[in-house]
Amino acid sequence: MKRNLLLTPGPSKVPVELCEVLGKPIIHHRTPQFQQVLKEVFAGLKTIIGTSSDVYLLASSGTGAMEAAVANLLSPGDKAITCEYGKFGERWTALAKAYKAQTIPLQIPWGKAVTVEDLKKVLAQHPDTKAVFLTQCETSTSATPDLEAIGAFLKTTKTLLVADCVSALGTEPMKMDEWGVDVVCSGSHKGLMLPPGVGIVAASARAIEAIAQSTNIRFYFDLRKSRKSLADTDTPFTPAIGIVIALNEAIKMLLAEGLDKKQAYYLKMAQAIWAATEALGLKVFAEPAFRARGLTAILVPESLNPKKIVKIMRDTHGITLAGGQGDLDGKAIRIAHMGAVDEYDILTGLSCLEKVLKEAGHSFELGAALAAAQKVLNS
Amino acid sequence: MKRNLLLTPGPSKVPVELCEVLGKPIIHHRTPQFQQVLKEVFAGLKTIIGTSSDVYLLASSGTGAMEAAVANLLSPGDKAITCEYGKFGERWTALAKAYKAQTIPLQIPWGKAVTVEDLKKVLAQHPDTKAVFLTQCETSTSATPDLEAIGAFLKTTKTLLVADCVSALGTEPMKMDEWGVDVVCSGSHKGLMLPPGVGIVAASARAIEAIAQSTNIRFYFDLRKSRKSLADTDTPFTPAIGIVIALNEAIKMLLAEGLDKKQAYYLKMAQAIWAATEALGLKVFAEPAFRARGLTAILVPESLNPKKIVKIMRDTHGITLAGGQGDLDGKAIRIAHMGAVDEYDILTGLSCLEKVLKEAGHSFELGAALAAAQKVLNS
Repeated sequence: MKRNLLLTPGPSKVPVELCEVLGKPIIHHRTPQFQQVLKEVFAGLKTIIGTSSDVYLLASSGTGAMEAAVANLLSPGDKAITCEYGKFGERWTALAKAYKAQTIPLQIPWGKAVTVEDLKKVLAQHPDTKAVFLTQCETSTSATPDLEAIGAFLKTTKTLLVADCVSALGTEPMKMDEWGVDVVCSGSHKGLMLPPGVGIVAASARAIEAIAQSTNIRFYFDLRKSRKSLADTDTPFTPAIGIVIALNEAIKMLLAEGLDKKQAYYLKMAQAIWAATEALGLKVFAEPAFRARGLTAILVPESLNPKKIVKIMRDTHGITLAGGQGDLDGKAIRIAHMGAVDEYDILTGLSCLEKVLKEAGHSFELGAALAAAQKVLNS
Repeated sequence: MKRNLLLTPGPSKVPVELCEVLGKPIIHHRTPQFQQVLKEVFAGLKTIIGTSSDVYLLASSGTGAMEAAVANLLSPGDKAITCEYGKFGERWTALAKAYKAQTIPLQIPWGKAVTVEDLKKVLAQHPDTKAVFLTQCETSTSATPDLEAIGAFLKTTKTLLVADCVSALGTEPMKMDEWGVDVVCSGSHKGLMLPPGVGIVAASARAIEAIAQSTNIRFYFDLRKSRKSLADTDTPFTPAIGIVIALNEAIKMLLAEGLDKKQAYYLKMAQAIWAATEALGLKVFAEPAFRARGLTAILVPESLNPKKIVKIMRDTHGITLAGGQGDLDGKAIRIAHMGAVDEYDILTGLSCLEKVLKEAGHSFELGAALAAAQKVLNS
């Protein structure tokens, strides 16, 4: 039987312990038994997100959590700055436009991320902006901004800061309250190590105020309903019970291992991939100042056909990387090192990549990527 | 360890075979391997729904599927008749109002369901109604309308017929194309025997036309995006991968057993519960002409405290029934016989109910409900 190794930036690898939990019969959600689970999940997510404010659970993908942010914070005509430095930044623009906001896209070259300076300029032109929407880990490019600095600036203004942390939560540091992030959107299937199906939204006090004022149409994603349900340790609609129960276990695993330690480890794995990439004579796409620790986009010359590399690794060897998205379609491969992925998974992925690159006629010394990665991992 | 038997109308009992599938590591969704799963799921759902038209999958609960119907079919100001004969009918009204439709609630006493005559009257007053929204199995009362007759009438008009089949699909017969139902909304966690997390929408040709014309704000639930993705055997956003893979197996199980045979069996289980209810000196809430086969709401005198009965059965004996909802809160218990629930589960539930009723001082002959049910089940 072929290996089934997911080195993809969502869904990420589900560890055996969580598979076991997902394979247990579920319980009913309107029971004290499930309320206990919800209590623990809310508390655990607050710790991971770094907030004492509300956390809401949705039965949705990450995009559902992003739509909830847009639908609940803005009203038609409100000004929204959407930071585009990849496919998921462009999704913020599409969402804000769909909700008839006055959308101000801030286009930044792919491979970089938004900076405080970028935002200062555009906010000076549009000081009445209701919210800035950005991506903490831009999954299409593997770039990440300095959220702490951006938060420190925006909290001195009236403009809210909304972060798509779908592929960042758990893997990148997040100190929502300390940094001044107003809304964190995430999902179950990236750093939290589970199958997709649970959307997560955290909202600061000033976000909750904006939610109360919005005139947008909202029903399924109405965060006012979510807030009301919190008082009864409940969700407004049927939650994805099985995944929520497993989420509780995932959070316990993460916190038992220690978030800081985990995140330092993700950085080390990222550095190992960067070194391996160089050893292969390829190029890490994101600029050094903006590199995320959860995944790496690697530029692959067209002659080597990145789509074919991904296909052979997956269909022949059972190891799944991601190809390029959007502007990087047909130009890149992406290796994720988030959630349950560890150094042995990374070395397995690199060894398979070496094999397939060699077969494709790429010139490098076999073992070079493995050796480079191994040196970083054991430094 | 306590038994964990769900006799609740969603989530329903997940059979062991599907627990096993849910406990397997997932695969990535943008792969030929997952496309194969999607192909089979779409084909299987078409058979269960009785349609050759589009079927869309959402990562959501059943309410998400209902919202998708409202958001995509109506435009602000459109007339919508929402049939209310229980809590979920009222949800159609709330959704239509949220989307600023001109909402015409058709109130029918709880325990009955809407009839062709009811609709003829209200449509005569509002012939320009865009769509009628009704509930196939009203989970709060266990009433069901004659959908075949209603479809036959509405397909002679310009008014669309939208059915909430969340707790009906798989358990009640559904012949969407033959009956003239335009939209079927459902979810994974009732008759389809899985945990919640997957919403299902099927749309007829005339529904697809309406979807193209709607001016409503739509993004996550935009069925135009879903339709476009069908061409690539894909979904617009990350699907609830694990549940979709298990859904494929659930559909295979249902179809291997035979839908007609299964649904006849659900009716027999329902009849067994009705006989048992009488033997206990209690009353089935839904009127005989409108009784669903997937669950039964039973009126319980306040002196017996239905909430306490549900609590003791669940917390002391590990057998979960549902209490009353909305108008029936504190007045009823509900026993589901849908999805994977079989006659032995029903008899287990009845034996526990007898025990708890006896302890509560209710006067009846111990074993009477079991005997009455057993006679029906073996007739």
